Amino acid sequence: MYRNFKIVPNIIFGRGSFNQLGDILKPKRVTSDSYMVFVLDDVFKGKTLESRLPMENGDLLLLVNVDDEPKTAYIDKLVAEVKAFNGRLPDGVIGLGGGATMDIAKAISLMLTNPGGTADYQGWDLIKNPAVWHAAVPTLAGTGAEISRTTVLTGPEKKLGINSDYTLYDQILLDPELLAGVPKNQWFFTGMDCYIHDVESLHGTYLNEFSRAYGEKSIELCRQVFLDDHPDKDDKLMMASYFGGMSIAYSQVGACHALSYGLAFVLGTHHGIGCCITFDYLDEVYPEGVKEFREMMAKHDIKLPRNLTAGLDDKAMDTMANVALGLAPLWENCFGKDWQQIMTKERVLEMYRKM
Amino acid sequence: MYRNFKIVPNIIFGRGSFNQLGDILKPKRVTSDSYMVFVLDDVFKGKTLESRLPMENGDLLLLVNVDDEPKTAYIDKLVAEVKAFNGRLPDGVIGLGGGATMDIAKAISLMLTNPGGTADYQGWDLIKNPAVWHAAVPTLAGTGAEISRTTVLTGPEKKLGINSDYTLYDQILLDPELLAGVPKNQWFFTGMDCYIHDVESLHGTYLNEFSRAYGEKSIELCRQVFLDDHPDKDDKLMMASYFGGMSIAYSQVGACHALSYGLAFVLGTHHGIGCCITFDYLDEVYPEGVKEFREMMAKHDIKLPRNLTAGLDDKAMDTMANVALGLAPLWENCFGKDWQQIMTKERVLEMYRKM
Repeated sequence: MYRNFKIVPNIIFGRGSFNQLGDILKPKRVTSDSYMVFVLDDVFKGKTLESRLPMENGDLLLLVNVDDEPKTAYIDKLVAEVKAFNGRLPDGVIGLGGGATMDIAKAISLMLTNPGGTADYQGWDLIKNPAVWHAAVPTLAGTGAEISRTTVLTGPEKKLGINSDYTLYDQILLDPELLAGVPKNQWFFTGMDCYIHDVESLHGTYLNEFSRAYGEKSIELCRQVFLDDHPDKDDKLMMASYFGGMSIAYSQVGACHALSYGLAFVLGTHHGIGCCITFDYLDEVYPEGVKEFREMMAKHDIKLPRNLTAGLDDKAMDTMANVALGLAPLWENCFGKDWQQIMTKERVLEMYRKM
Repeated sequence: MYRNFKIVPNIIFGRGSFNQLGDILKPKRVTSDSYMVFVLDDVFKGKTLESRLPMENGDLLLLVNVDDEPKTAYIDKLVAEVKAFNGRLPDGVIGLGGGATMDIAKAISLMLTNPGGTADYQGWDLIKNPAVWHAAVPTLAGTGAEISRTTVLTGPEKKLGINSDYTLYDQILLDPELLAGVPKNQWFFTGMDCYIHDVESLHGTYLNEFSRAYGEKSIELCRQVFLDDHPDKDDKLMMASYFGGMSIAYSQVGACHALSYGLAFVLGTHHGIGCCITFDYLDEVYPEGVKEFREMMAKHDIKLPRNLTAGLDDKAMDTMANVALGLAPLWENCFGKDWQQIMTKERVLEMYRKM
C-alpha cells in the first residue's frame, strides 16, 4: 500500500513575485463582505513587508509572535480573535514568515472550520473538515513548512503536528527577494533544517525513487548555497527547501528530528537550532552528513550552544526521552522495524546528557 | 509578471501501486448511476493490463488507437461515443497508455464539459469550463503528458495543444512495473522526449531556478537510465519524465520540438521519433545535448530514418516550415526576443531538406 500523496497545487516562483499577491487573492474575494486574514511574523511590524501587504477594506492583520515555538493554546487564542473580528469565516488566510508563522497560519485555517481545541487534533488525519483556503509566503527558507502536510505545535502533552491533507497550503508564493536581510544565524539554522531533511530522507528505510530524486537535488542545492556561496543562493535555497519538503513528505524524517522534538518540548529550543544541536551528536547514524554539516558550520563560523541539559533533573530528562521516543515513524524510517532494539531509552538519555 | 503555476495535486508512486487504482476511484463514484470511462491504448486489448482494470458495472472501456498521432476529429468522435453511452457525464476519465493516450483522455474530459468542436480550443487558455475529473496511468515514460497542462492534437489547420489549467490531470498513478515489456525503440524514443525537454528547458531563455532544479535532476536521471543502465532504471525514468515535465511546464521547450511539430503535421511522424530526428540536426543550437544524445543512440543501437522529406513538393515543405515557425514561444525560449532574425524561414527549410 502506497500513500496517495497530495501536494500544494499552485506555485508562483520568482524574484518580485510578491507584487502579484494581490492579483492571486482577487478571485478569492467572492462577495462584498469577503475578507482575508494576513498572518505576519511581528518581526516585520513597521517594516517594508508590512506596508507592501495587499490589504483591502475589512481585512485583518494578525501580527504573531514566534519568539517561542507555536503552542496549541496560542492558536486557540488567535482563532478566537478572528472569530471576534468578523462573524463570518474569512475567504483566505495568508501566512508570511518562517516555518513557525507558516505553521500558525495553517493551524488557524484548520481550526476556523473544525470544532474543539487545537490540541485535540495533534496527530495523524484527525481533521474532519476542509480548512479555509490558505496561502504561504515564506520569508525564510529551509523548513519545508510551505509544502508539508503538517503544522508542528507544542501542546500540553506533546510536541506533535496536525498531520492532514487539509493542512497543506492551497497556494504558495516563492519570492527569493524576501530572503534578503535575514540574520546569518537564522538563515543558517533554517537552511540546515532542509539539509537535515535531505540526509534523513536519503538515509531512511522509507525512501523511494520519488523521495530520492527530490532529496538528492535538494542536498546538491544546499551544497551550492552553504559550501559554494553561489551567486543565486537565495533562489537555490528556496528551491532546496521546497524539494527537501517534497522528499520527506513522501518518506519521513529521522533520528535528528525526533531528538530535537524532545529538546523543544522541555527546553523550548527552536526547531532549526534544535536540529543542528542534535545532528551534531549523530555521527554514528549519519556519518557523512554530520561531517559535511560541520564543514558548513565552519565555513559560516557558526557556534552551537552547549551544556543545555546540564541543569535538568531526572524527571525532565525522562520527559525529553519519552517525547523523542514517542515519534515511532521517525525512528522506524531511520532504523527499520526493529528500531526499539537499536534506539533504547538509555541510549537516548545518554545522547541528551552530552548535549 | 510570473505565471501562477498549477500542478497535478495528487500523486501515487510505487511498484504495484496500480493495484490501488480501484480504491482511488471509489470516492469519485458518488451516486448509484456514477460511472467511469477507461481510455486504454488498444495495444493492451486482450492483455493483462486490460483484465486488471478496476471496472465496475456501468463503466465504459474506450480502446483507443494511437497508430497515428491524436487528431481533433478523433476526439470529437470519442466524446460522441461517451455521450451516446450514457446521458449523464461520467464521474471520471482515466487515461492508461503513453503520451498519445494520456492526451486523448485529457481531451475527452475537457470536451465533455465544453461546447463545440475540439479544434476550436487548440491554443492557450481557450477552455472555459472545468473538465470531468481525470486521472492518468502512464505505461510509457518520457513525454511528461502525465503532468503537462496541454493535450497535443493535430487539427485541420495545425498541430497545437489545448493549453489550459483545466487540462492538467487531477490524479496520476506512477507504477514503474507498468513499463516492463515496452519495445526497445519505443522506450528509447519516448525517453528521449524527456531528455530533449531537459536540454531545451536548461538552454532556454525562460529558465528560472524552479525549472533548472527539475531539469538538472531529470537529465541526471536520464543519464542513469540511458548511459549507466541503472538497475532501478524504470523507477528513475518515471521520475525523469515527471521532473522533465515540471521543468518545461514552468519554462518552455525549444527548437527541436518546434521542428518536430512541422514533421508531424505534414508526415504524421510520431512525437518521440520526430523529436529524435530533428534533434540530430541541431548541433549548432544544442551542441553538448546532441553529442550526448548520439552516445545514447550508439549505446542502444538505435537507427533513425533518413530522407524523410526527399519526396515532398515545395507546398508541403512550405507548410512544414510554417507550422514550425508558428510556435513563437518555443523559438523565443530558444533564441530570445530576436529569434526571427536567427531562425529565418530559409534556415528552417534548409534543415528540413537535410532530414
